[in-house]
Amino acid sequence: MHSVKIAFLTLGMMSLEAGFQASAQPSTTPSDSLLIRQVFNEVLSHGEAHENLRVLCKDIGHRLSGSPSADRAMAWGQQRMDSYGVDTSYIMPVEVPAWTRGDVAEALALSPDGTAMDLHITALGGSVPTEDDDWIEGPLLVVRHLDALDTLDARGHIVLFNRPMDPLLINTGAAYGGAFDQRGGGASVAAEAGAIGVLVRSLTHALDTLPHTGSLRYKDSVDKLPAAAISTVDASALAKMHRATPGTIQVRMRMNSQDLGNVEQGNVVGEWRGSEFPHEIITLGGHLDSWDIGEGAHDDGSGVVHTLEALRALKAIGYAPRRTLRFVLFINEENGNRGGKRYAAVAAEEHASGLRHVAAMESDAGGFVPRGVRMDAPDQGVAMVRSWANTLEPYNLHYFGRGGAGVDIGPLKNLKPRPLLLGLVPDGQRYFDLHHSSQDVWENVHKRELELGAATCASMVLLLDRHAE
Amino acid sequence: MHSVKIAFLTLGMMSLEAGFQASAQPSTTPSDSLLIRQVFNEVLSHGEAHENLRVLCKDIGHRLSGSPSADRAMAWGQQRMDSYGVDTSYIMPVEVPAWTRGDVAEALALSPDGTAMDLHITALGGSVPTEDDDWIEGPLLVVRHLDALDTLDARGHIVLFNRPMDPLLINTGAAYGGAFDQRGGGASVAAEAGAIGVLVRSLTHALDTLPHTGSLRYKDSVDKLPAAAISTVDASALAKMHRATPGTIQVRMRMNSQDLGNVEQGNVVGEWRGSEFPHEIITLGGHLDSWDIGEGAHDDGSGVVHTLEALRALKAIGYAPRRTLRFVLFINEENGNRGGKRYAAVAAEEHASGLRHVAAMESDAGGFVPRGVRMDAPDQGVAMVRSWANTLEPYNLHYFGRGGAGVDIGPLKNLKPRPLLLGLVPDGQRYFDLHHSSQDVWENVHKRELELGAATCASMVLLLDRHAE
Repeated sequence: MHSVKIAFLTLGMMSLEAGFQASAQPSTTPSDSLLIRQVFNEVLSHGEAHENLRVLCKDIGHRLSGSPSADRAMAWGQQRMDSYGVDTSYIMPVEVPAWTRGDVAEALALSPDGTAMDLHITALGGSVPTEDDDWIEGPLLVVRHLDALDTLDARGHIVLFNRPMDPLLINTGAAYGGAFDQRGGGASVAAEAGAIGVLVRSLTHALDTLPHTGSLRYKDSVDKLPAAAISTVDASALAKMHRATPGTIQVRMRMNSQDLGNVEQGNVVGEWRGSEFPHEIITLGGHLDSWDIGEGAHDDGSGVVHTLEALRALKAIGYAPRRTLRFVLFINEENGNRGGKRYAAVAAEEHASGLRHVAAMESDAGGFVPRGVRMDAPDQGVAMVRSWANTLEPYNLHYFGRGGAGVDIGPLKNLKPRPLLLGLVPDGQRYFDLHHSSQDVWENVHKRELELGAATCASMVLLLDRHAE
Repeated sequence: MHSVKIAFLTLGMMSLEAGFQASAQPSTTPSDSLLIRQVFNEVLSHGEAHENLRVLCKDIGHRLSGSPSADRAMAWGQQRMDSYGVDTSYIMPVEVPAWTRGDVAEALALSPDGTAMDLHITALGGSVPTEDDDWIEGPLLVVRHLDALDTLDARGHIVLFNRPMDPLLINTGAAYGGAFDQRGGGASVAAEAGAIGVLVRSLTHALDTLPHTGSLRYKDSVDKLPAAAISTVDASALAKMHRATPGTIQVRMRMNSQDLGNVEQGNVVGEWRGSEFPHEIITLGGHLDSWDIGEGAHDDGSGVVHTLEALRALKAIGYAPRRTLRFVLFINEENGNRGGKRYAAVAAEEHASGLRHVAAMESDAGGFVPRGVRMDAPDQGVAMVRSWANTLEPYNLHYFGRGGAGVDIGPLKNLKPRPLLLGLVPDGQRYFDLHHSSQDVWENVHKRELELGAATCASMVLLLDRHAE
């Protein structure tokens, strides 16, 4: 047994799996490997993702739901799909919120000795302004957990939620998830405790003076408090002042964000009809909207150009899909997910009428070097994707774990039969340094890493098209 | 069989291996996992690698073999090891070359219409200067392969070797290897063909105006030509001009590099004696010398601070090594590898006297996010390391391939019995953007990525110490 074990193991980790497959059924054919090599060659030698991203980020710019630049991005996205040869393209209408940040977001910390420290803040997405766009002021209260307010009197205070992302979690996405409640729910919890305003430590491992925005959700039952993201450096400084002289620090803040109601925008959809099973749909997408600071380059300009490039590359290598491929640029992922919900509602109607969504893939974790995919799928689908590990290993794709595939395609999981949902997993160590900040710009996306992500998306779609059941 | 296969596969790629091990012999114990988690926690919460790298890059600076700053780096490295609690530290003397770049490296391309284009060049390491440090001038000849000069008359010419790194190779190291011959051997091949000077396209995928230096080797049998790296943008522009009007472009260049003979420096060695098998040695190292442009931050300041941090972290968690751990900062990797050769020569003497080098690991591929390790080892050693895949998977370490482990530890492979040689494999997509250029500076190293690399080195040393035979 020992010698057999050694023989197996020396074939390499990936070959272990091949060993399994040899005794079962090989689930990829040699031509899969050849096609995938063609995809990568095409993207790495004639790739347009980087230039498309430049146009999206620099010529169109950031594109918050409801903004005129989001309209321009929709038109551009549809034009790109048409130019790459989809059979048909259309806008799937979606009502989206038209919140705006305004041009004022200021805060100061006032010490008992009369000194004032400027704080780097920006409104959380969806936040109400301070009353009459004027200053509010209150004593600082610093907490690290929402439930700390259960036993504290926060009346009249401005509350800083200051729990950092956990640096010990290897995956930064998990650390983000573990700190997210402060941003998502802090404002209403603080309102319940009587506070008048909220600051939330930016969700990033970086120690710098950039505030990182992101959406919040108000409970209907309590007052809506003005809430801002504050840079990690400022948050740490405030907490230190608070520890040194508790109860003596005043915070003053003002913001003039504004809720402009709803407007109609939409998901951009391009279809490439399948030759063999045109009634079976495989979706690939990213979200076109972005926050309104920075350029939404990684979040999610990368997913947008991954999607467009996958279409372009599959066309360029002469691929003939068996199933219908849908390329979708979702609207309103950042502050409502109305695009994703609408897409799933349409998909449910389509299911009822005989169209079947067999799989969907999303790229919404940045343009960094790809590591693999995350799967939200029935066991058999997970097993199928894992059986491709050998074919994907030459591209440094090693990760095939379970987990949420993405916000936009997430609502598709309620379809029956349940489609196979995949999310691209790029390396995440740098993502939250930039995420939702002024530094999420085109210059901070690496051309080859972006291309490898695009080729990975195209390859996964190709494998799904050839092998999904 | 089908259901069994599905059951297996749904456990995940890594769990496949666990399935194997369960039926064979688990080769890591639960305490391995706990120790490795402690190592990562220590490095991610109290890591000193990033600050050590700042001191090395900013306070000491670049540190070419033979330079006074390399002397300062040696003293600093030894002091760091002592402060982290090695039982003994010493300098292992090595004679190293003391070549200097000088302060002049200029080149111009002259068109027939009288216009002149400045070219961004820097001397290749070891290059002779232009005669009397004065201008040389000759018609431009552009080739992409060394053997193109077999059939071309290069007499009196300045030759540009212009073959880019192959963008289709997924691993940039392979692309570097495929273009390296131009830099390493181009000067002597051009001399054989009668040329008077050499320009070599910088070895990088980046299109920019930075020249990337690196060593060359002259054949003894032919004249030594002055040879410089030229930026990729300039190389492409020259090639375009050459294609447009072949034979009409003149190149003028001068450099005042200088060979100052040999001086004595050395490898910095720190030893932590093993409690159980003190005569068995496990080495971990990186190289202390760097090129003299930039700061050698990734190449190989990262390897230096990975090594120091592994020592610090293993001490901090209270680890008690079974074997003797040697932490080595090698000298002269960049232009001679005399440090690595000397270390292997000493190791051979040690072998003869009863000390046994069971394993060595090197970090010399940058401070980017780790992907795994490359192994140059007997089959049984490779199998052992692969059996740890499960234990390492939570840290996103998936790659356990065969290949060269590193230049410094490479000469150890001639020992008998042959030690297990490991090289850290960080992600390589960005490495050659910076490599050997003015941009290889501390600011371009990411703190968490650097820390994850250090924790990986420490973990591998720990596993080797506990399980090597």
